[in-house]
Amino acid sequence: MTDSDTLRVLPLGGLGEIGKNMTVLEYGGRMLMVDAGLRFPTPEMHGIDLVLPDFTYVLENADRLDGIVITHGHEDHLGALPWVLRELDPADRPPVFGRRLTMAMAQSKLDEHKLRDIQVNTLDPGQVVTIGPFTVELIHLTHSIPDAAGVLVTTPLGNMLVTGDYRFDQSPVDGRPADFDRLARLGKDGLLLLCGDSTNADRDGFAPSESAVGPALYDVFARCEGRIVVTSFASNIHRVAQVVNAADDLGRKVALVGRSMIKNMKIGRSLGHISISDETLIQPKQIDDYPDDEIVIVSTGSQGEPLSALRRMAYGEHQAVTLHAGDTVVFSATSVPGNERAVNDTIDRLYQLGCEVVTAAQAPVHTSGHGHREELKLMLNLTRPRYLMPFHGDFKRIHLHAQLGAAVGISADRIFRGENGLPLEIDANGARFGKKVQAGMVFVDGLGVGDPGDAALHDRRALSRDGIVFVVAIVSEEEDEIVSSSEVVLRGVPAVDGVESLTEQLRDAVERTLDRAIGEQIHDPDLLQQLVHDDLAKLLFKLTKRRPMIVPVIVEV
Amino acid sequence: MTDSDTLRVLPLGGLGEIGKNMTVLEYGGRMLMVDAGLRFPTPEMHGIDLVLPDFTYVLENADRLDGIVITHGHEDHLGALPWVLRELDPADRPPVFGRRLTMAMAQSKLDEHKLRDIQVNTLDPGQVVTIGPFTVELIHLTHSIPDAAGVLVTTPLGNMLVTGDYRFDQSPVDGRPADFDRLARLGKDGLLLLCGDSTNADRDGFAPSESAVGPALYDVFARCEGRIVVTSFASNIHRVAQVVNAADDLGRKVALVGRSMIKNMKIGRSLGHISISDETLIQPKQIDDYPDDEIVIVSTGSQGEPLSALRRMAYGEHQAVTLHAGDTVVFSATSVPGNERAVNDTIDRLYQLGCEVVTAAQAPVHTSGHGHREELKLMLNLTRPRYLMPFHGDFKRIHLHAQLGAAVGISADRIFRGENGLPLEIDANGARFGKKVQAGMVFVDGLGVGDPGDAALHDRRALSRDGIVFVVAIVSEEEDEIVSSSEVVLRGVPAVDGVESLTEQLRDAVERTLDRAIGEQIHDPDLLQQLVHDDLAKLLFKLTKRRPMIVPVIVEV
Repeated sequence: MTDSDTLRVLPLGGLGEIGKNMTVLEYGGRMLMVDAGLRFPTPEMHGIDLVLPDFTYVLENADRLDGIVITHGHEDHLGALPWVLRELDPADRPPVFGRRLTMAMAQSKLDEHKLRDIQVNTLDPGQVVTIGPFTVELIHLTHSIPDAAGVLVTTPLGNMLVTGDYRFDQSPVDGRPADFDRLARLGKDGLLLLCGDSTNADRDGFAPSESAVGPALYDVFARCEGRIVVTSFASNIHRVAQVVNAADDLGRKVALVGRSMIKNMKIGRSLGHISISDETLIQPKQIDDYPDDEIVIVSTGSQGEPLSALRRMAYGEHQAVTLHAGDTVVFSATSVPGNERAVNDTIDRLYQLGCEVVTAAQAPVHTSGHGHREELKLMLNLTRPRYLMPFHGDFKRIHLHAQLGAAVGISADRIFRGENGLPLEIDANGARFGKKVQAGMVFVDGLGVGDPGDAALHDRRALSRDGIVFVVAIVSEEEDEIVSSSEVVLRGVPAVDGVESLTEQLRDAVERTLDRAIGEQIHDPDLLQQLVHDDLAKLLFKLTKRRPMIVPVIVEV
Repeated sequence: MTDSDTLRVLPLGGLGEIGKNMTVLEYGGRMLMVDAGLRFPTPEMHGIDLVLPDFTYVLENADRLDGIVITHGHEDHLGALPWVLRELDPADRPPVFGRRLTMAMAQSKLDEHKLRDIQVNTLDPGQVVTIGPFTVELIHLTHSIPDAAGVLVTTPLGNMLVTGDYRFDQSPVDGRPADFDRLARLGKDGLLLLCGDSTNADRDGFAPSESAVGPALYDVFARCEGRIVVTSFASNIHRVAQVVNAADDLGRKVALVGRSMIKNMKIGRSLGHISISDETLIQPKQIDDYPDDEIVIVSTGSQGEPLSALRRMAYGEHQAVTLHAGDTVVFSATSVPGNERAVNDTIDRLYQLGCEVVTAAQAPVHTSGHGHREELKLMLNLTRPRYLMPFHGDFKRIHLHAQLGAAVGISADRIFRGENGLPLEIDANGARFGKKVQAGMVFVDGLGVGDPGDAALHDRRALSRDGIVFVVAIVSEEEDEIVSSSEVVLRGVPAVDGVESLTEQLRDAVERTLDRAIGEQIHDPDLLQQLVHDDLAKLLFKLTKRRPMIVPVIVEV
């Protein structure tokens, strides 16, 4: 038995967290990547733009990477793709595979990053492609974006399925439920490993069907006498389609507002996922040409994003839309964990403007794209995997998904609760965790990709807490004296009795320290800087109870 | 009719927000303050410790302030008290009134701030005190801290009631439900104005009784085989009492962990709100002396606070308690809006350690201290106020509380949806909003109190986003040249190709700018600094796509 007869499943993101999903499959010395997602930064990550999985392992083995398969077009599965490709040597950039909409979205990202000469391959469900030692087939699943798919990978050891995000919607808007037949055949033929979505492993029952949202929206719209603003994820094309239909049925025009909303609907229309008649669709600047009760605005901003269209409307800062009493804002989405405060702020601003606000707590105007507990069990019962490795979830959800596996009869030694960087290794003798590889976060910070230990980020954290003090002093080598009065510049340091008074006290302290040091014949600028630093640190803590960064620059002339 | 015949109700905090409740009542040229609360900062308020109401109006009229009445001991009603008193001239510091526990907590705060010579007066319910032109009586209500009270204020124009936080618990742990009789008599005698808690105006029905939490805790505890950690608000003394009773019934010892938990229980025990036998209570360092199934730990940290005991346990950094598989952590609290992410992080860390976690979503181990919608209606029906002004809520909750007022028959022109700084003015002719006064937030930042426009905070925000560049150059007045090579110091600026390379490029740019300027006979240091600033700003944006703060110091020698 050589290592080349081992199938290694190495999650680099998405385990022990929600977001930045990325998995590397290895067999016979070759690699296949499934998904390349990102996360959005938390407020503690000062100035960080995006969070990616640490894909050092991929870079170090770039010559073994034969392809990247993307399950669907959401940022947490697709968003890191250009960043991964950018870091790879052009010669090592592998082809990318996925369904039609997913690849249209991928192509749009690659274009933005000016990544040319990448092979972007559309793979329809049922079609089979060989990527290195792997045979890959996509299986149609339902989710909150069209063209979601599970990735079936066949190796000499057996079949494995990475579900990506899914749910079992029995009446999806486009009339195409998940491919139960193909999943059941997997179960019948024998599935070695299931890597399944755990996002809603804490929610009971079945998620309500997406097609139940349309009538709920219609009911809400029918009661509204003013304008209606609906906010939803821009990629949820079927949701927007239902908003448009409800508007249409009630004789209201529809305006799309927000960059990503307009972009996604353009892609969605061109691929036939949504049809909006030219009579229904109006431009944002035409909104005021119609009476209030003939307007529906579909807007980005369901997560309270600071620059989003809805947020700007709520703060009275949107160019085209000024909200007022009588308008109704419908949140056809729920808050992603961590966004609650931003969403609540937006909602409260809307109430302050006199708007009515309808959320999923008041009416069934939203449903999740992730299967609830009964759906996860249905997936397990359809595919009957030998091994289960819960994917896409924090430790809590992975734990709960593992419990569901046990509930349908998978024995504990065949359920693997993994974490990022920990490879599952399967060979003819069984399955076990292998040796951990480097995994974690890398940050996109301005133009560059860096690691979280990054000095710049560390500095920004310290600066944001306590501010900074710069000191400039010029000493003369020959004359044993301070040449000109020293400069002290404060930024971000709270000054109880005013900045001038604090600056004055610090300047006096600097001169005292330097006078004393020079008196003791100390001339080494590094040593002088150290002395100034230490004396100021003590004084600053005494005066402000803070520990600002202190940067002394002593110049000898 | 003179202005002195007008009753002014001026909310300075708690309207259009959750937290920092403060209201000023004025009559006959005199003032009475009801509550002096604070809020905790959001992550955007870099380095800010506390948020207070802007009480400029009080400071400007300090000689007219006759007293401060506190409804109960929570931070959002009491926490600003020492900060207000500190800012007042000692001669203007008025007496403080409230119930026993509330005044014990107030005294402890005043001691911490070394505020001596403040008159702290305990006022029992039913007792009547004259404060300036106002007659004040406290009415016993139930809440999630003992000794909560509504403030009944009598003026020649009539009675008004500020409820503070309350609920109608029909079976409170201490057997003392709200004083329905006194409230009903108010309704019978005629209540001019009700200022009522709106916190749960969005929640249907009645909140479950606090005494239902005890049996739920017992049921959860009875299933646990390892140690149990219960986290709750430290001020919820009756909740802790129920934890202790359940532990006692199951033969488990109880250890209190966390500074505020220990402090509050000490006050609670001394005032008779909680009894813990010395046999049950053990010290944290004794925990390891007992088998796991004989231990209950009561801990702070229910909100995921970074330095709290539970957070440190979850991160394996607590001195006395090391959690492991088999332990169960019970969250006997819900997340305050904005804390969801910190709480979820803590929970997930606990799962990673192998602990079981029980929250209010899984078992009824928590109930709210704020009345739900039926309780708000009960208050309205008991007291039958002529005018209603919803208090303690964001705009959404104020709106919903106003709707409840309408539902019980108060006509729209007698319901006032206010905001901070907007006084309600009542005289013999009726009620209306008056002219707005200054209101908003002030920040406690280190040792000082400042306003949010504060330059230091503004700087910290900018620093946290983009960092700072500091430039030192020395030019000679006489010789038209740069004396020594300039220094460039970066802090927090992302450097794509390394800090050294970026510093090098910036240093070259500084010298180019100075050479050119000096060549053009520019010597004014201010002008040179401006030129260096502008040239570096352009270059930095080109190189990093960031706009760091730039501080040039050009010294002439």
